[in-house]
Amino acid sequence: MRLFSPQQLAQNAFCPQDYEQLAESYLEKGLFAYLSGGSGQEHSLADNRKAFHEIQLNSRLLNDVSKGSSELTLFNQTLAAPILLAPVAYQSLVDPQGEIATAQAAKTSGIGSVVSTLSSQSLEKVAQAAPPCKLFQLYLQNDDAANQALINRAVEAGYQAIMITLDTSVQSVSLKARRLGFVLHQQVEAVNLRDYDHNQNPTGKTLFQGLMAQAPNWQSLGNWIKQSPIPVWVKGVMHPDDAIQLKQMGVTGIVVSNHGGRALDNSPSPLRVLPAIRKAVGKDFTILMDSGIRDGYDVFKALAMGANAVMLGRLQIYALAVGGAVGVAHMLKLLIEELHLCMALTGCKNLTDIRADKLFIQPTQIQQSL
Amino acid sequence: MRLFSPQQLAQNAFCPQDYEQLAESYLEKGLFAYLSGGSGQEHSLADNRKAFHEIQLNSRLLNDVSKGSSELTLFNQTLAAPILLAPVAYQSLVDPQGEIATAQAAKTSGIGSVVSTLSSQSLEKVAQAAPPCKLFQLYLQNDDAANQALINRAVEAGYQAIMITLDTSVQSVSLKARRLGFVLHQQVEAVNLRDYDHNQNPTGKTLFQGLMAQAPNWQSLGNWIKQSPIPVWVKGVMHPDDAIQLKQMGVTGIVVSNHGGRALDNSPSPLRVLPAIRKAVGKDFTILMDSGIRDGYDVFKALAMGANAVMLGRLQIYALAVGGAVGVAHMLKLLIEELHLCMALTGCKNLTDIRADKLFIQPTQIQQSL
Amino acid sequence: MRLFSPQQLAQNAFCPQDYEQLAESYLEKGLFAYLSGGSGQEHSLADNRKAFHEIQLNSRLLNDVSKGSSELTLFNQTLAAPILLAPVAYQSLVDPQGEIATAQAAKTSGIGSVVSTLSSQSLEKVAQAAPPCKLFQLYLQNDDAANQALINRAVEAGYQAIMITLDTSVQSVSLKARRLGFVLHQQVEAVNLRDYDHNQNPTGKTLFQGLMAQAPNWQSLGNWIKQSPIPVWVKGVMHPDDAIQLKQMGVTGIVVSNHGGRALDNSPSPLRVLPAIRKAVGKDFTILMDSGIRDGYDVFKALAMGANAVMLGRLQIYALAVGGAVGVAHMLKLLIEELHLCMALTGCKNLTDIRADKLFIQPTQIQQSL
Amino acid sequence: MRLFSPQQLAQNAFCPQDYEQLAESYLEKGLFAYLSGGSGQEHSLADNRKAFHEIQLNSRLLNDVSKGSSELTLFNQTLAAPILLAPVAYQSLVDPQGEIATAQAAKTSGIGSVVSTLSSQSLEKVAQAAPPCKLFQLYLQNDDAANQALINRAVEAGYQAIMITLDTSVQSVSLKARRLGFVLHQQVEAVNLRDYDHNQNPTGKTLFQGLMAQAPNWQSLGNWIKQSPIPVWVKGVMHPDDAIQLKQMGVTGIVVSNHGGRALDNSPSPLRVLPAIRKAVGKDFTILMDSGIRDGYDVFKALAMGANAVMLGRLQIYALAVGGAVGVAHMLKLLIEELHLCMALTGCKNLTDIRADKLFIQPTQIQQSL
Repeated sequence: MRLFSPQQLAQNAFCPQDYEQLAESYLEKGLFAYLSGGSGQEHSLADNRKAFHEIQLNSRLLNDVSKGSSELTLFNQTLAAPILLAPVAYQSLVDPQGEIATAQAAKTSGIGSVVSTLSSQSLEKVAQAAPPCKLFQLYLQNDDAANQALINRAVEAGYQAIMITLDTSVQSVSLKARRLGFVLHQQVEAVNLRDYDHNQNPTGKTLFQGLMAQAPNWQSLGNWIKQSPIPVWVKGVMHPDDAIQLKQMGVTGIVVSNHGGRALDNSPSPLRVLPAIRKAVGKDFTILMDSGIRDGYDVFKALAMGANAVMLGRLQIYALAVGGAVGVAHMLKLLIEELHLCMALTGCKNLTDIRADKLFIQPTQIQQSL
Repeated sequence: MRLFSPQQLAQNAFCPQDYEQLAESYLEKGLFAYLSGGSGQEHSLADNRKAFHEIQLNSRLLNDVSKGSSELTLFNQTLAAPILLAPVAYQSLVDPQGEIATAQAAKTSGIGSVVSTLSSQSLEKVAQAAPPCKLFQLYLQNDDAANQALINRAVEAGYQAIMITLDTSVQSVSLKARRLGFVLHQQVEAVNLRDYDHNQNPTGKTLFQGLMAQAPNWQSLGNWIKQSPIPVWVKGVMHPDDAIQLKQMGVTGIVVSNHGGRALDNSPSPLRVLPAIRKAVGKDFTILMDSGIRDGYDVFKALAMGANAVMLGRLQIYALAVGGAVGVAHMLKLLIEELHLCMALTGCKNLTDIRADKLFIQPTQIQQSL
Repeated sequence: MRLFSPQQLAQNAFCPQDYEQLAESYLEKGLFAYLSGGSGQEHSLADNRKAFHEIQLNSRLLNDVSKGSSELTLFNQTLAAPILLAPVAYQSLVDPQGEIATAQAAKTSGIGSVVSTLSSQSLEKVAQAAPPCKLFQLYLQNDDAANQALINRAVEAGYQAIMITLDTSVQSVSLKARRLGFVLHQQVEAVNLRDYDHNQNPTGKTLFQGLMAQAPNWQSLGNWIKQSPIPVWVKGVMHPDDAIQLKQMGVTGIVVSNHGGRALDNSPSPLRVLPAIRKAVGKDFTILMDSGIRDGYDVFKALAMGANAVMLGRLQIYALAVGGAVGVAHMLKLLIEELHLCMALTGCKNLTDIRADKLFIQPTQIQQSL
Repeated sequence: MRLFSPQQLAQNAFCPQDYEQLAESYLEKGLFAYLSGGSGQEHSLADNRKAFHEIQLNSRLLNDVSKGSSELTLFNQTLAAPILLAPVAYQSLVDPQGEIATAQAAKTSGIGSVVSTLSSQSLEKVAQAAPPCKLFQLYLQNDDAANQALINRAVEAGYQAIMITLDTSVQSVSLKARRLGFVLHQQVEAVNLRDYDHNQNPTGKTLFQGLMAQAPNWQSLGNWIKQSPIPVWVKGVMHPDDAIQLKQMGVTGIVVSNHGGRALDNSPSPLRVLPAIRKAVGKDFTILMDSGIRDGYDVFKALAMGANAVMLGRLQIYALAVGGAVGVAHMLKLLIEELHLCMALTGCKNLTDIRADKLFIQPTQIQQSL
């Protein structure tokens, strides 16, 4: 039985991660494997957590943070915390309200929200429930007219930016889910794409002649950047050279991400490439980061490593599965409290204080410091 | 059934750590989780042990230590070993005599004792049982009069110094204990604070406007240092810059500590920051260290890394739970024997011999030494 | 019951490694231990996998790989992928068709094949089923006439090269298999050697006077290189100095290999020595690599570390055990798809693009990049 | 039931380590804990194995080792392999013949033997069974006359050297054994000490005033070196400075050892300090090494790191427990075969070839070699 009252949630979830275990107990095995699993042998999925565990924080004393705040201004909107809900596809798999519920939770919590091309509720309906800071995530379709129509609809619905995901020209469904017989397309419909021809299966013999022949390239991305009336972001950046080129092409922000370990397996945790990417694009370019964030400490670490804000995927969907909109809001409350705790005890009055000097770096040779 | 006779203890506890397992078998699950648990995901709790395990000792031959001794002079008192019992709160949770029993054990064993603001026996009663080397640990209250009164009472009762704890402006009770339904305030009373208004719950919306707005700052600490008729120590230091500033403000000594993994989770083991802090304050400033010490080898390592003495928290409370004052004294006997063994086999006649050259540092490249 | 139809295989094996678990469920315990085990305490067997896990890949965006291909030209033959089936001995242990089945799968899949001296089908029969790119693996016999006869037969049968294995002058059968009572020679016959005297047991008291006194040396290898009418390769190279000397002696290519962890235990994974060997022989010398490859990601990593192509041993025999020729072909299909995925998502149009810059190297000190 | 025939042993033990598991199944739990356990929390016991696992070997091709041999000349005696049985105390605990059986096995196997002061058979009886290369291990007694008498008896009995153990001025019996109620002195008698007053319990209050006040010092060691008519060795060296001083005082050889993890817990594996000690004493001084050796690969590694020979403690006693003298000889046969295998496959014709260049050292940065 799912939990819907704040009291029930408070008695069962004491930290954001608790929602994972609770979700596992409610969801059908194959579906949970699909949601929690990664691509390939899940090396990236594991590294996403490992990289956070390798980082430690400098506790400081007597910090005057009485005027402290975790607010962030994005698109002229003030967020209560540097957090956006990531564009998780097909949320009706775990909750009948799906994206509308998570959008409501984001609004209530004062954070941002990114809606997926593959949402189970129409982008227009979700926009109505969503907070002022809302983005539309776009998987570029083979059909140019469809892309144009989707962008137009997003602009009309009030989205502030288009976030184009580029790391999954090839999607790999979790092997665990497949072994359990989970088949995504029997259970969901991509309602936003209902009017377009989006199920063209590539006919090439190899991946190169098939999916990759249809994949977007630098030129097509350039065209969409020029044509979009609202800013364009790119999600899935994992290399400084790609970040530089995107910045030069006019992209407004990037998301450093390995798609939560669902894109190329064996890619490192985005946390490992974040410092080099920050260095490459300079301090004034907006970088979001996702993949592996499970608590407020991780948010703090991601910011100290160079991100302006983070996105939450799995935590969002687990909390949605457990408690609907109320569950997501409760999870966010716990997580933001942890972020505030980190800020207070490391002496960060605001987000710009969260820099690398707040991280503890072990001397390579203990003897040097003796 | 608890063990009270020295014989029973000697047949069940062969090393200090054995008291942990014994305590677990006697105590209610939630209470044991509260005592043994750390904050957050317990990363710091784990690192507190891991850091000790990474250190190895140089065994030396034919050491003439026949005149050896582990004595330390602190506040003109001679301790038999460089050990103080840490200010563990609410000791009546595990033993009806509580702080009186542990103070007696410290006295019998010839070591020092620090009594908590949150003791379950009044600071005056504990002082009577305590050894000559006794300190009063102070959590600064929002009420200045209360702080003044507590300091006056401590001076009058014969405490030699005030140890102000600064690393827990925010306390995080173990998630494990909370999941087990453990609620601290149903079971204990802060008797020392009975006459003061100490339960003001902050009303701010966020941590910043609430607890942190009331937290002590550098200025208020400075005032208490000036006003205190006895020396002031600070507990919870984790950064060289804080240590330098505290020394400059007139603090007499510091405790390098992450509160046994109960303060900011993800902070490193104090052992990792100890060498840099020693370097920062110079060799003549008194540094205590706690967090993660479970045997006499750990005491030796802490001293070799830069501490003058250590404090014992969990070992104290586990031994108290198992065998009362006799249990604590037995645990201390085992631990001091291990310290003596380390000194004898590394060739340390006294505590000043316990320096970094007694630690084995692995060459970074094995080939270099081949 | 074994699986023979493509449908059954597709429903049970979702990645190449799945064949290992399936094989284990079909095969007699001792036989599986023999096939899966390594020499000694299996340190090398474990390191063969660990070395691959330590390597991460750079995911890149918007790669134009629509003309991509994993083709490799070897001996004027075009392979669909840089893969050869390794010369696994006595394949009739797991399938009645044995080497004929695996040769057929290689042919169907467009890759190369290496046939063992110890094949359970005659080298002539296997040659008929094998793909155009076929090599004959030779264990040098004590009897020179036998060696000469084997080389002649291989030339006549159409093999393109002789691959002499040099890392197993002493063979160590898996301790696990021996503990389970597995005895190889009761179950198989080396049909290729039927007409030669190949079972001379050495009579020396020690290994030095026995097996090692009969082992090939640099001079005897030199003779066979000169006498062979077709190119000679050497398998089992693990040191740059050996690689240089082999190149100077006229060897056409080498296989960097620790025999899948079945030769000298405690030797490192070949992946660890590959870069130094590539550096030693220069970029134009052909290097194959085997030992530890379990998926297409591993193939990509081996190439990025310096190999031109890889050989598959255990994956081949597991798939053969599960599904015969069809199983091997299905395993190869899955593995090549993974290789294509890696190429597409790292931006490699062809094999020459798979270089070290496609690997993610963690900065040694995170602070340097902050 | 113990195993006595070579056939039974060969069917149950396939490598030296197999004797450990077999011994565990025969021996009483407390006794096995005493034999297998280490001091303290067994950190050193674990590191003794870990250090060997961190080392890898360079496999080489076409090595001409047909004239190979693992012979070593020690005290003008030729050993078949660089191995001596370590002076394990009270061997009658596991076999009624005890030290006589192990001495016979050493003789049969052509290796050396060191007999303990605490042997359960008299040193004279053991000498008769022992191989030509035999040493007498001496724990210096508080009674000078006893020491003199023991040395005289050893000389008379034909021992070639005295090996004085110096790392256990304080002995710590395994906590595991003590928890299981194992009490050594109820079961054994130190027959060699029967005529001397050797059970003086020190009366000092602390370790310093007690055991350590009676412990040998540099001066008393110097006296015994001068008075001994046969060469003196020292066992338990773990620091280059101690090694240098011992060499200068006239010691003939040293044993780098942490007493198999039974002396100072938290001391590193002797393997880690071996290269620095070899560097300190130069290449012509004899160094033995023990602690952690469980197979022939370990022997090879110890020699490559700087030892001239090794001693076997636990393997000896496990094999004795399982199969008496025949068991020890079988264990030695398996172990020497592994050493020969390592020599053959790394290209070592004799022991002087086993140098550091036979070890594989991982480049610290993989990129450097790419």
